[in-house]
Amino acid sequence: MSSSFGENIRFSVFGQSHSEGIGVTIDGLPAGESVDMRRVAAFMHRRAPGNRRGDTARKESDAVRVLSGILDGKTCGAPLCGVIENTDARSGDYAPMRRVPRPGHADYPLQVQCCGAQDWRGGGHSSGRLTAPLCFAGAVCLQILERRGVHIGAHLQSVGDRSERGFTPVLLAEEELHAPGLRAFPVLEEAAGERFQAAILEVKEAGDSLGGVIECAAVGLPPGLGSPMFGGLENRLAAALFGIPGCRGVEFGAGFAAAGMRGSENNDAYCCTAGEIRTETNRHGGVLGGISTGMPLLLRVAMKPTPSIAMPQRSVDPVNMEETELRIPGRHDACIAPRAVPVVEAITACVLLDCMMEGKNGWL
Amino acid sequence: MSSSFGENIRFSVFGQSHSEGIGVTIDGLPAGESVDMRRVAAFMHRRAPGNRRGDTARKESDAVRVLSGILDGKTCGAPLCGVIENTDARSGDYAPMRRVPRPGHADYPLQVQCCGAQDWRGGGHSSGRLTAPLCFAGAVCLQILERRGVHIGAHLQSVGDRSERGFTPVLLAEEELHAPGLRAFPVLEEAAGERFQAAILEVKEAGDSLGGVIECAAVGLPPGLGSPMFGGLENRLAAALFGIPGCRGVEFGAGFAAAGMRGSENNDAYCCTAGEIRTETNRHGGVLGGISTGMPLLLRVAMKPTPSIAMPQRSVDPVNMEETELRIPGRHDACIAPRAVPVVEAITACVLLDCMMEGKNGWL
Amino acid sequence: MSSSFGENIRFSVFGQSHSEGIGVTIDGLPAGESVDMRRVAAFMHRRAPGNRRGDTARKESDAVRVLSGILDGKTCGAPLCGVIENTDARSGDYAPMRRVPRPGHADYPLQVQCCGAQDWRGGGHSSGRLTAPLCFAGAVCLQILERRGVHIGAHLQSVGDRSERGFTPVLLAEEELHAPGLRAFPVLEEAAGERFQAAILEVKEAGDSLGGVIECAAVGLPPGLGSPMFGGLENRLAAALFGIPGCRGVEFGAGFAAAGMRGSENNDAYCCTAGEIRTETNRHGGVLGGISTGMPLLLRVAMKPTPSIAMPQRSVDPVNMEETELRIPGRHDACIAPRAVPVVEAITACVLLDCMMEGKNGWL
Amino acid sequence: MSSSFGENIRFSVFGQSHSEGIGVTIDGLPAGESVDMRRVAAFMHRRAPGNRRGDTARKESDAVRVLSGILDGKTCGAPLCGVIENTDARSGDYAPMRRVPRPGHADYPLQVQCCGAQDWRGGGHSSGRLTAPLCFAGAVCLQILERRGVHIGAHLQSVGDRSERGFTPVLLAEEELHAPGLRAFPVLEEAAGERFQAAILEVKEAGDSLGGVIECAAVGLPPGLGSPMFGGLENRLAAALFGIPGCRGVEFGAGFAAAGMRGSENNDAYCCTAGEIRTETNRHGGVLGGISTGMPLLLRVAMKPTPSIAMPQRSVDPVNMEETELRIPGRHDACIAPRAVPVVEAITACVLLDCMMEGKNGWL
Repeated sequence: MSSSFGENIRFSVFGQSHSEGIGVTIDGLPAGESVDMRRVAAFMHRRAPGNRRGDTARKESDAVRVLSGILDGKTCGAPLCGVIENTDARSGDYAPMRRVPRPGHADYPLQVQCCGAQDWRGGGHSSGRLTAPLCFAGAVCLQILERRGVHIGAHLQSVGDRSERGFTPVLLAEEELHAPGLRAFPVLEEAAGERFQAAILEVKEAGDSLGGVIECAAVGLPPGLGSPMFGGLENRLAAALFGIPGCRGVEFGAGFAAAGMRGSENNDAYCCTAGEIRTETNRHGGVLGGISTGMPLLLRVAMKPTPSIAMPQRSVDPVNMEETELRIPGRHDACIAPRAVPVVEAITACVLLDCMMEGKNGWL
Repeated sequence: MSSSFGENIRFSVFGQSHSEGIGVTIDGLPAGESVDMRRVAAFMHRRAPGNRRGDTARKESDAVRVLSGILDGKTCGAPLCGVIENTDARSGDYAPMRRVPRPGHADYPLQVQCCGAQDWRGGGHSSGRLTAPLCFAGAVCLQILERRGVHIGAHLQSVGDRSERGFTPVLLAEEELHAPGLRAFPVLEEAAGERFQAAILEVKEAGDSLGGVIECAAVGLPPGLGSPMFGGLENRLAAALFGIPGCRGVEFGAGFAAAGMRGSENNDAYCCTAGEIRTETNRHGGVLGGISTGMPLLLRVAMKPTPSIAMPQRSVDPVNMEETELRIPGRHDACIAPRAVPVVEAITACVLLDCMMEGKNGWL
Repeated sequence: MSSSFGENIRFSVFGQSHSEGIGVTIDGLPAGESVDMRRVAAFMHRRAPGNRRGDTARKESDAVRVLSGILDGKTCGAPLCGVIENTDARSGDYAPMRRVPRPGHADYPLQVQCCGAQDWRGGGHSSGRLTAPLCFAGAVCLQILERRGVHIGAHLQSVGDRSERGFTPVLLAEEELHAPGLRAFPVLEEAAGERFQAAILEVKEAGDSLGGVIECAAVGLPPGLGSPMFGGLENRLAAALFGIPGCRGVEFGAGFAAAGMRGSENNDAYCCTAGEIRTETNRHGGVLGGISTGMPLLLRVAMKPTPSIAMPQRSVDPVNMEETELRIPGRHDACIAPRAVPVVEAITACVLLDCMMEGKNGWL
Repeated sequence: MSSSFGENIRFSVFGQSHSEGIGVTIDGLPAGESVDMRRVAAFMHRRAPGNRRGDTARKESDAVRVLSGILDGKTCGAPLCGVIENTDARSGDYAPMRRVPRPGHADYPLQVQCCGAQDWRGGGHSSGRLTAPLCFAGAVCLQILERRGVHIGAHLQSVGDRSERGFTPVLLAEEELHAPGLRAFPVLEEAAGERFQAAILEVKEAGDSLGGVIECAAVGLPPGLGSPMFGGLENRLAAALFGIPGCRGVEFGAGFAAAGMRGSENNDAYCCTAGEIRTETNRHGGVLGGISTGMPLLLRVAMKPTPSIAMPQRSVDPVNMEETELRIPGRHDACIAPRAVPVVEAITACVLLDCMMEGKNGWL
């Protein structure tokens, strides 16, 4: 099954870029949790196109219609299904690419897998559009987590070769965590946002695109959450985060940098602070061997540059097996990473709530 | 469930560093596949300690006793269970650390999760020792994959701040793929191996340890393998690879470097070669949107430095909530990355065979 | 997760009796399969209320809107989501029962489980209304199975103490299989239908209800489908069939009667017929040890009498812990078994297609 | 995957009738639970052959070696693996049946599924011998459940056409529940045991075999355990119980008899007893719509007659496609149902503990 994740709560996504609707079913949410739909809409707005220069021109209201699972503003134990209509799809834009695969997209392998029956319009089920229902699911989970003192935030730490500082690793305040989400452009330092946006507009004018790195953090997690080996926080978060179209890498704590360190540098010493066991530094990113330590959870996601670019590209017409030049019209983000920031938060929220619902953990 | 992975074939690992035995059950293997146990032993020998300078002094023969699942040298459709006895465990070494958690290990969060009932001897179930049965499982899968023309190899691409070149991304020959596995120290270029080993011995003498990056490749995969969204090759490989103790990051193709590129750099143009659709470059690492393209699969795993170091470290005695200094005796690898190279190959083999068993794919 | 089943194809149901909508998402269907929506509607009509005397008076068109997963009349590999609006819900009827649990319904245990947050209107998520999307899913699967030569049919074998003959166990023709589905009342022999309906109307007038037994058969299954132990056809069919509200028992072949037989009576001798290995009799119901034999699959489902009856019943008001008399108004089937006949067919189709998608089986 | 079950705790069985060993891995048990191995052995002894007249002559000590998961007599959170050696296998007995399938066994469909590579000795992985590790798993779970006040018992309610009364449905005392397990022959009334054993010996002398029905009950379950639709107690219990070789039917509460009742007969009125909500009768068998009500859980399992009988039977040699007469030597139970009684208890215990580990339930 390609389109669901979660062990105790199951998140199942459906829809294609140009199908009638897209949505998500969430099975296993605790009952009796109130859901503030205005806050849900505010969260989803952060992902919606058109809020930043360089965004795609496709306009979708992304209004969610809840078909089931909520009664009088609270979860009722039944699966919660939210549906979003697709209203501004322009399938005609994609007709020339029905056969010729776009470089960097999943068109070609999907075509092979589905023997040509795949939905070729706008990336079909592999489209970034499917992150809208994921944001809905995440927005619901974030509210449930916040009531348990767990807060999640993310920021765009780099765009192309420009970067900003990361979250404060040890004493991460909620204000810092939520600051990027309050900005139109999700960064910690406003100046970085200006530099990032300038870079994006520059490549857009050149008919090109840029990638970026997103850092996400969660505070308030109890120690002991997760499992050793394959059921760990890293395993489950990575499995879900690689579901974001364009994600090419996931790392925790010091991540790839840890591979260049000595043990004496990378190990975090334990200390007692205010009657609690904590670590003095946080190179481990709040998770050791799959299980949370109670320190801030820190992870990073590498987003590749948008594969749809205005510049002509070389591809192949598989019917005639002829090399050809492809020009992609349509409306595209010059950098998908800014809009992916709330998606990373959302998926992190979904996975963490799923882990907290585990029977051996008594937190919910 | 913490200790199993796989959707069509289920790999379930059991055991602790110092329990009577460790092992793996593989449920769902195709029937009638011959298993050459000498080749299995040869593969497992690559992971076994004592083959490289800097390895732990613990001696384990790692002989696998197959309890079930094989009849007359062939899989018989029943779950294959392989058991390895633990013979050289020295639990006494760990007595001082029964209470005081070792920095960089999972001791503390496990202690919280299990309310003190966890097996504290040598890391228990979270020990690197559990990668021995994973290598057994991988060795079996590799033989089945090879009969379908799929070959997998890995090498240690960096140790600390020293690195060597990666696999040839586009035309990756089987010889290059298998070369590192034929060496005692798993690198592509012998000279790099010398430099890496020198670095490891240096930190070992300093009572410290080093991390490293492992690159793994698979050739011969058909295009169309995997799934969009959460059932993709990246999702399933990452979920399993983060089960290796010490893994801090996983990336595919250009990985985190892709985040610094432009779309025109990162996109791989399609071309026709010998009647097949291929890409001219391979920044995508053989997988787009979760599905294989038929190009070599390329992934990298970041391994942190061994957390067990001889140098004294600061920790906390949780009973008295007192800060204390910890000295870890025991026998440890100064760098676990070389021994993790066959583990990355093994897990990659298990996941890829699992994906190939999927019903919608007609390869097996 | 309560609301999904299937290993290779995942069927996820959502909705409540009186929520805005109900539906199902089917993830993992093979791509390129044409779906005739008129035949789907005809199948669903068999379950719809109002076709038989004794049916509930609630009128629902049960028109399915396909939001995703179908392109140009064919499955496209993406999850297929079908939504049905709830239009004739009369929640007011249930207001008196908001607190007082109805005997024989899941009201009381759900109330405990959800701490009072459950959807109390018309049974909520536990309502028989949820079998409408299951019939949609089954109708899609039936078309895919039929193209592989697998045909499924079911009939109402008994109502209360009245019964009719079962399907011909050995040489079961497609006509016999499909005959009950062509009748308004789903029986093999028209005379039995008259007797059954008379019994139902009789209890309805008495303000009471009746149960019944449904027999289902599938022909054209290849031998070798399924798995030993817990992944067998029986295990997977039973797990799904017990999801039908009111199902109290499931048996295969001779079922409970086999417990009263001798081995020499119950064993089916093998014979050669037209170059194929078959059994002379079919007490095993086409499945031995979890795996199909190629003989007709035969199973029976016991449906209890509709718990909603017009007669007054004794219950308890949990707030005051006071015993009270309950009168259920609303609109109810005097016997749910006739409408459950296509549901049994549908679930059987879903499970069998799921089994056929298994990688080790080469049928799809 | 054929050989595991459980969602929160995973029970994975391995082994064949004549492989070197058989066993089970239990992943997800709560940590810190003491396991009394003498009580485990006593429970397993109830299933062991040779305790009753009519049992197979195969002698197996069924001593379990725990390889992992227990430290100092308590579960440690790691997967618990128990292994049993096969010591008295006589594979030679089965040589004549290597090709010719035994009627009533899974030989033929397994042969088709595995293309002849299946383990043909003594039923291989489909053998009743695999219920020994299930009893080990159940014995562990029973101890954990008992500490939470949940008690489980079962008895042989019928053999062939002879039967005894069922468990007292409403006020089921622990003594009654455990009484059958204390007898060599597991019945409620000693006189019934005599009649049952006489019937078994009679068919044994005739070279034939008999089936039987097992009733199982659990008391002390909290209300609210389970889930609606497909995650209910019935669904999960049935899925696991059909894994017992020879199981042909599973029913809950009044079961198939409910199909012959009126609603007014089958509905159980609610009442207040000692400040608790209970039902006056217990036709629902303690579970409504998948969720426990707090009343005794009642289920019945139909076991077919042992398919291995001494009488000659007709079968087919699939190589020559020739009909042939088969005589089964070997050592067989004339009725497997008595030895299956503790197996039903064991599986029920495993499933109920699995359900109690669910996050939304706060019982563990």
